[in-house]
Amino acid sequence: MLEFVRSNILQMRGYEPGEQPQDGEYLKLNTNENPFPPSPRVVEALRQALTGDRLRKYPDPLGRQFRETAARVFGIPAEAILIANGSDDALTIITRTLVPEHGRVLFPTPSYLLYETLAQIQGAETHTIPFTPTGDLNPQDVPDGVHLSYIPNPNSPTGTVVPRSRLHYWPTPLVIDEAYADFADENYLSLPLTQEKVIVTRSLSKSYSLAGIRFGFAVAHPELTRQFYKVKDSYNCDALSLVAATAAIEDQDYMRSNVARIRATRQRIIPHLRQLGFSVPDSQANFVWCRHAERPARWIYEQLKARRILVRYMSYPEIDGLRITIGTDADMDRLLDELRRLV
Amino acid sequence: MLEFVRSNILQMRGYEPGEQPQDGEYLKLNTNENPFPPSPRVVEALRQALTGDRLRKYPDPLGRQFRETAARVFGIPAEAILIANGSDDALTIITRTLVPEHGRVLFPTPSYLLYETLAQIQGAETHTIPFTPTGDLNPQDVPDGVHLSYIPNPNSPTGTVVPRSRLHYWPTPLVIDEAYADFADENYLSLPLTQEKVIVTRSLSKSYSLAGIRFGFAVAHPELTRQFYKVKDSYNCDALSLVAATAAIEDQDYMRSNVARIRATRQRIIPHLRQLGFSVPDSQANFVWCRHAERPARWIYEQLKARRILVRYMSYPEIDGLRITIGTDADMDRLLDELRRLV
Repeated sequence: MLEFVRSNILQMRGYEPGEQPQDGEYLKLNTNENPFPPSPRVVEALRQALTGDRLRKYPDPLGRQFRETAARVFGIPAEAILIANGSDDALTIITRTLVPEHGRVLFPTPSYLLYETLAQIQGAETHTIPFTPTGDLNPQDVPDGVHLSYIPNPNSPTGTVVPRSRLHYWPTPLVIDEAYADFADENYLSLPLTQEKVIVTRSLSKSYSLAGIRFGFAVAHPELTRQFYKVKDSYNCDALSLVAATAAIEDQDYMRSNVARIRATRQRIIPHLRQLGFSVPDSQANFVWCRHAERPARWIYEQLKARRILVRYMSYPEIDGLRITIGTDADMDRLLDELRRLV
Repeated sequence: MLEFVRSNILQMRGYEPGEQPQDGEYLKLNTNENPFPPSPRVVEALRQALTGDRLRKYPDPLGRQFRETAARVFGIPAEAILIANGSDDALTIITRTLVPEHGRVLFPTPSYLLYETLAQIQGAETHTIPFTPTGDLNPQDVPDGVHLSYIPNPNSPTGTVVPRSRLHYWPTPLVIDEAYADFADENYLSLPLTQEKVIVTRSLSKSYSLAGIRFGFAVAHPELTRQFYKVKDSYNCDALSLVAATAAIEDQDYMRSNVARIRATRQRIIPHLRQLGFSVPDSQANFVWCRHAERPARWIYEQLKARRILVRYMSYPEIDGLRITIGTDADMDRLLDELRRLV
């Protein structure tokens, strides 16, 4: 049966997102959620949106209110902004716009596993290139015929960043996946306005504490953004997520204050993890990448899970390890206590 | 510039959804929204979902609670149900799973304009077949090599239905797009369980009054549904829409009572429209397809718009006309009053 299904789909395994237990029993340090609630202004805007006609009527397919607000907040033209149902949706739209069947995509390894899935769904070939020990990439490793490169910056799972000059002069069309950029020292949000082959994607799931509502956006040259609007589902963003996202980006102070707390916690716990025998690269994200000299990563993951702490065990062809989300100070103290018993 | 964009995307025009003015100034009879609000249980469930961790945490990527509820309500296995960000998202997922680049899709004309857009994005070829005067389709019109047929049933914009035997014995893989099936006398929701090449899609935008939250689903053979889960974005449905959709389908009585009112209004106004010189096929949906013997459809559309009533002007290669959503009795009386002045 199923002989009418495309062979690339039948053969692929499918992306496996991190575990999402819905019962609240676990301390979740596995999918880089923000430990703090979203801005009270978001919740209030959502509450008001439940009255009136917003549920009954279609949302604005162009998301004009969000785009105008984001344009003002970030100092970029509204025409450069693509609204998306999470930044994964933006990555899907970009891939479908640029990558033909039998095309070729490139991404570094270890990085976000979804890029391979996006290529497989599109029926495209993948090419991976390694990070240098400092987290840099070598453009000499890029083969011919690449339709699109994905570079997460900061990278997941390592938390490292690529030097600015690499991203300015990348030899192929490029998505800079900035899902974690709010936790980093710098970002490239306006680079697409001068470099037409560069697209930046953003998520509201992490820094804005809104993983539940699915909202992300991309910034690209307005002419390219116009192509993306042809490819996106007309109503890819619902009325409530548009309201929430608009309120969230208007409250930059709230976001920044949470980010500052998470960055402080991150800097505090890295030395503790290193003392426990973990090798941990300096991180510019809201997680740390941990590999232990003696204990297998999978074993630590399982032991922590038995103690109701979820971290992300990640396995790549060349490496495995634990990606641990930065929670509150109390969350991290609980984690460190358990780790001290284990390693 | 943009030489790195796929040529099929550059060349396509993009789907144009019906106008969605966000200011509430218009009587909207153009995008088949429900004139009644969603179930109070939906609003209450959403209100409760704003507290706690639901906004901050990722939703369940499998939508288990919705699927189990829908399985119980509709008497089908949960494994047969694909959750989607509106039924357009389901159509996109199905297309990407079954249709390769340079593949071939088929749909009747006049029907839902999105099917052509989905084919263009995929880089596939389209083939259209005409409806017979009674709204039937002739399988003899189907060429070889079709990867997927889309048949909306009831059809938009005509509101007509295809006889049962056609859908049971269609010669290609088939999506029965049941966005409007709750307004019809019968539906085919469980047909995919015995016919592995048939998929049914549903929307919560119309009969459940939830166009704003973007939720739809598909029913397919569980093995085929498993393939669709590989292709969908992991978190295509957000936490709030899952909550709303689950509450909505649990309240079948509320939905059915609104549907009964809309059907009664539909039957009441069709004779009035015919008296005004419109040719109007019998409709099984929440809209009517109107063509006037003397007045051009576009002119009537523009005149109504100037009077703050939006209907949908639809233009196909072989035909044009007005698709008018059934609103409340008062809405339709206002429409009839204006039409009496115009025609």
